[in-house]
Amino acid sequence: MSTIVNRRDLDFLLYETLGLDSLLEAPRFSDYDKDAIDAIFDLSQSIAEEVFQPFAAQLDDNEPKYIDGKVEIIPQVREALDAYKEAGLFMTPYDADIGGMQLPWMVHQALNSMFVCANTSVSNYAFLTQGAANMLHACGSKELQDKFLPNMLAGEWFGTMCLSEPQAGSSLSDIRTKAEKLDDGRYKITGTKMWISGGDHELTDNIIHMVLAKIPGAPPGVKGISLFLVPKNNVNDDGRIGDSNNVALAGLNHKMGHRGTTNCLLNFGESGDTIGYLVGGENQGLANMFHMMNEARIGVGMAATVIALGGYLYSLDYARNRPQGRHLTNKDPETPMVMISEHADVKRLLMTQKAYVEGALALMYYAANLLDQIKISDDQQEKNTLNLLLELLTPICKSWPSEFCLEANKHAIQILGGYGYTREYPVERLYRDNRLNHIHEGTHAIHGLDIMGRKVRIADGAALKALAAQVMSTIEQASQWGGLSQHGQDLSASLKVVQTTLESVSKANDPSLALANATLFLDAMGHVVIAWMWLKQAVAAQKGLATGIPADKAFYEGKLAACQFFYRYELPKAICQFELVAKVDDTCFNLTAEQFIGT
Amino acid sequence: MSTIVNRRDLDFLLYETLGLDSLLEAPRFSDYDKDAIDAIFDLSQSIAEEVFQPFAAQLDDNEPKYIDGKVEIIPQVREALDAYKEAGLFMTPYDADIGGMQLPWMVHQALNSMFVCANTSVSNYAFLTQGAANMLHACGSKELQDKFLPNMLAGEWFGTMCLSEPQAGSSLSDIRTKAEKLDDGRYKITGTKMWISGGDHELTDNIIHMVLAKIPGAPPGVKGISLFLVPKNNVNDDGRIGDSNNVALAGLNHKMGHRGTTNCLLNFGESGDTIGYLVGGENQGLANMFHMMNEARIGVGMAATVIALGGYLYSLDYARNRPQGRHLTNKDPETPMVMISEHADVKRLLMTQKAYVEGALALMYYAANLLDQIKISDDQQEKNTLNLLLELLTPICKSWPSEFCLEANKHAIQILGGYGYTREYPVERLYRDNRLNHIHEGTHAIHGLDIMGRKVRIADGAALKALAAQVMSTIEQASQWGGLSQHGQDLSASLKVVQTTLESVSKANDPSLALANATLFLDAMGHVVIAWMWLKQAVAAQKGLATGIPADKAFYEGKLAACQFFYRYELPKAICQFELVAKVDDTCFNLTAEQFIGT
Repeated sequence: MSTIVNRRDLDFLLYETLGLDSLLEAPRFSDYDKDAIDAIFDLSQSIAEEVFQPFAAQLDDNEPKYIDGKVEIIPQVREALDAYKEAGLFMTPYDADIGGMQLPWMVHQALNSMFVCANTSVSNYAFLTQGAANMLHACGSKELQDKFLPNMLAGEWFGTMCLSEPQAGSSLSDIRTKAEKLDDGRYKITGTKMWISGGDHELTDNIIHMVLAKIPGAPPGVKGISLFLVPKNNVNDDGRIGDSNNVALAGLNHKMGHRGTTNCLLNFGESGDTIGYLVGGENQGLANMFHMMNEARIGVGMAATVIALGGYLYSLDYARNRPQGRHLTNKDPETPMVMISEHADVKRLLMTQKAYVEGALALMYYAANLLDQIKISDDQQEKNTLNLLLELLTPICKSWPSEFCLEANKHAIQILGGYGYTREYPVERLYRDNRLNHIHEGTHAIHGLDIMGRKVRIADGAALKALAAQVMSTIEQASQWGGLSQHGQDLSASLKVVQTTLESVSKANDPSLALANATLFLDAMGHVVIAWMWLKQAVAAQKGLATGIPADKAFYEGKLAACQFFYRYELPKAICQFELVAKVDDTCFNLTAEQFIGT
Repeated sequence: MSTIVNRRDLDFLLYETLGLDSLLEAPRFSDYDKDAIDAIFDLSQSIAEEVFQPFAAQLDDNEPKYIDGKVEIIPQVREALDAYKEAGLFMTPYDADIGGMQLPWMVHQALNSMFVCANTSVSNYAFLTQGAANMLHACGSKELQDKFLPNMLAGEWFGTMCLSEPQAGSSLSDIRTKAEKLDDGRYKITGTKMWISGGDHELTDNIIHMVLAKIPGAPPGVKGISLFLVPKNNVNDDGRIGDSNNVALAGLNHKMGHRGTTNCLLNFGESGDTIGYLVGGENQGLANMFHMMNEARIGVGMAATVIALGGYLYSLDYARNRPQGRHLTNKDPETPMVMISEHADVKRLLMTQKAYVEGALALMYYAANLLDQIKISDDQQEKNTLNLLLELLTPICKSWPSEFCLEANKHAIQILGGYGYTREYPVERLYRDNRLNHIHEGTHAIHGLDIMGRKVRIADGAALKALAAQVMSTIEQASQWGGLSQHGQDLSASLKVVQTTLESVSKANDPSLALANATLFLDAMGHVVIAWMWLKQAVAAQKGLATGIPADKAFYEGKLAACQFFYRYELPKAICQFELVAKVDDTCFNLTAEQFIGT
């Protein structure tokens, strides 16, 4: 069986649960029908399984090395990215007007996710390039686009995002990289950037860095940040690569996971002038950088989700083929051993993974669908509502999988026991890879502050109202199926708890204290949203069962069981968390640094 | 500050909370007073910090290699173990009659924990040797002891435990290693053992394996297992090392953590005869192997705890020295950044670590104290009660830290952000090291079955009654301090929930279903026990505060805050879990292997 995708479930999520078929009726996607999309998935799956997945462990064990100022990477990385390029996959996220495939974002996410699951470290190079190209396309001048974009779209040159600095990780307001305007309108860039994934390598002839920097005299803080395009090598007017632009690799970071992606400390303008090109307006850098932020954050959530999908599928396959022990009531050691998938706790560990992974997958595709719906809608009010919903869900999309799909990876290791803890099996690598996702693209805490301090309040709670309306619509559908009505009632009750929790917290006098447990709110809110996603899936499964196709019976029963699991085992935990958040507890908030250990 | 031990807290736990001073009054420990023990701690801490800790990262990055049939390990490992040996520390766990230091087990655990925290991989070699020697001392014949024990006690020869086989991990009943009796009373051993930590290396001239095997004709299952001493090299009658005993290293496993400890697949009797010596009676192997099981399992729990202590102390130090961002209400980017220990969510992450780590530490020392009390008691009824309490607490001691102190390590990474995810900082290594502890010495699920299927029932619930009596006594003490009475009431209520949960579950018709959520019961029961440990600490802190020594004020306030945190943020989660367990839910239990993904 495949350990990077469950195609039956992908169909179920995209078509039966989230209505991709009706999306395909929009003129924007008229080039595609299910057969065409299946063919794209077939192609992606085969490249991911045959070219990306086989060397994931080898790459993890042979991370890029910094030798004589250059990066050495095992050759399979380039071969894999060449295969991706030759299949035309670099073009999947773009619109037709620039030669892109103009796929629904749901489909783009789905095919990308196969590469992430197969070999996260390699897929990073492609996705960073697509992100940088999208930003350039959205905000750059025609001249800049003409010069740099075609090679990026073709996957000939890779791209990066350069935000953090050693002294400014989460606090972009404090970046120091300087951009001084030259007479010809270009800028001289000086400074140091940290944590730059794909920041240097020899995989492509050029690397296009999208760099945040400050122009002298700009306003303090984030209002004074501008965005620059900084190529590794200068590009001549004829489009050919010129001399070095003096972006110096100062060192590689050595991570716990994602070991195949170079992660760099870069110095700009140290060994000679580094030239940058302004992208968008002066001091508009943060807005420009955040242009693709919802997509990027859903991308992180999707990565966290499918890294756990890999662990789930692998551990399921293992559990169904590994004999060990006997049923509890069988005390005869001379009877044959049973497969460990027969043991109750292994079932619970598998079910927990299923509930987390398939619940999160549904949310990722739901959010991608919102992006698609926003694009095809010509009703401004509908667009606004969809945008509000997307804004509210984005911190959950990014954060919930980071937390709970990491937990799923932990369970995959447990199922393999001692084997799972070794590098001879993939599950520990997936666990290591997944631990990053709480940290980048905004830490877990930052998303807590975002949702609780901003998103639930925007437009006087309109986003939350939009969400509630969607949830109530699913509950209404569920009420038509006897087996789901209790879940619907539980979900409705939990929505009310969200509301009362926010009301309680709003009465706090100290705004900082009110947000002190925002991370707990974020996690619990995520549980409510995932419970909704499970109810959506349960409705689809009931419909599927009603069609009576025998081959699908076990599949749909599994969906209904996973929904039930989420409502009985998981949702009550969220209620318990909301009760805590509602109390605006100050136990941690009031603690001084001395009180932790007494000195 | 030290990042392997908080000596102020160690004093607080051992003396102020758990009464080590009164234990030292027993004749068994008359050689020791607090000054003597402080000197032992000073010595241990300095060797752990100066010799073990400095190369922990280097060892992790340079794991032992299998070259030409031999194991190559970086030289610092031997140097560190030599320093441990020369300081006489191999002798800490033994009684005076065999030349041991006859320390209280609490003290032995405390000093060992410093080495675990400093460099887990290296400490493993010492502790495995001490475990094997203890087993030989407890169960071996005088002849065997005379031949092998002195060199093990001196740390000249190391020891291992050989239980698992490739086809029999958790299911010892299915081991196949064979022991055929020879005419001279010795045994010929053939078979393969898996996951043998310290199973081969060149650190010592000999390795003494304690091996489980079956004598042909023995009863099936665990009743037919015997224990054998199998040296790597034969030992002549004059005590000198003879020829090879044909224990062949078939390969090394490459783990996610614990990378400095060799972990081996060993073949016995493949390349020539392997001779074993029966330890204890035929078919008594499991009982003999389990002789030191409570100690070993508390040792695993202690390891899980102090690996998290290392993360806690490191991340606390980092948070107090890393400037980043500003208070939420300060919107002026030109004001200086604050230390991240000022941010509410960082405080919460630190407090969670403190509550888990110091709660677990208290339990580990409490359990060690039980071992000490059992040894010094001459009242058989008291001994029985203490033994029951120890039996009940052992699965919690082993499992709770494995689960929750791993979570603490996860939080330490989060505090360091991107830095925490790199191998340039120790917190990711600690996280990787800690993930093993759910798996070895009985998996998490096995301990769930142990506590819920056996321990709560033994002697008609006498162990649970003994626990309740102890808990109620702490609640009684707490009631004398106004600030603690609510916690006492909450703890008392949770004890009742344990009882009602067990009553509900006992009504289940299917005994397998009744235990299907045993792991959840184990975790929740652990929370109740840790809540009790926090109440014990809070009582001690209140007493401490009442003495009015100003230097300790912040320390005691931190203890009271951590207790409050545990009761407000953690204990309610356990109640929620008990409610689930009480329902004897069959959602996972009834699932078939096909239903997970539909095929």
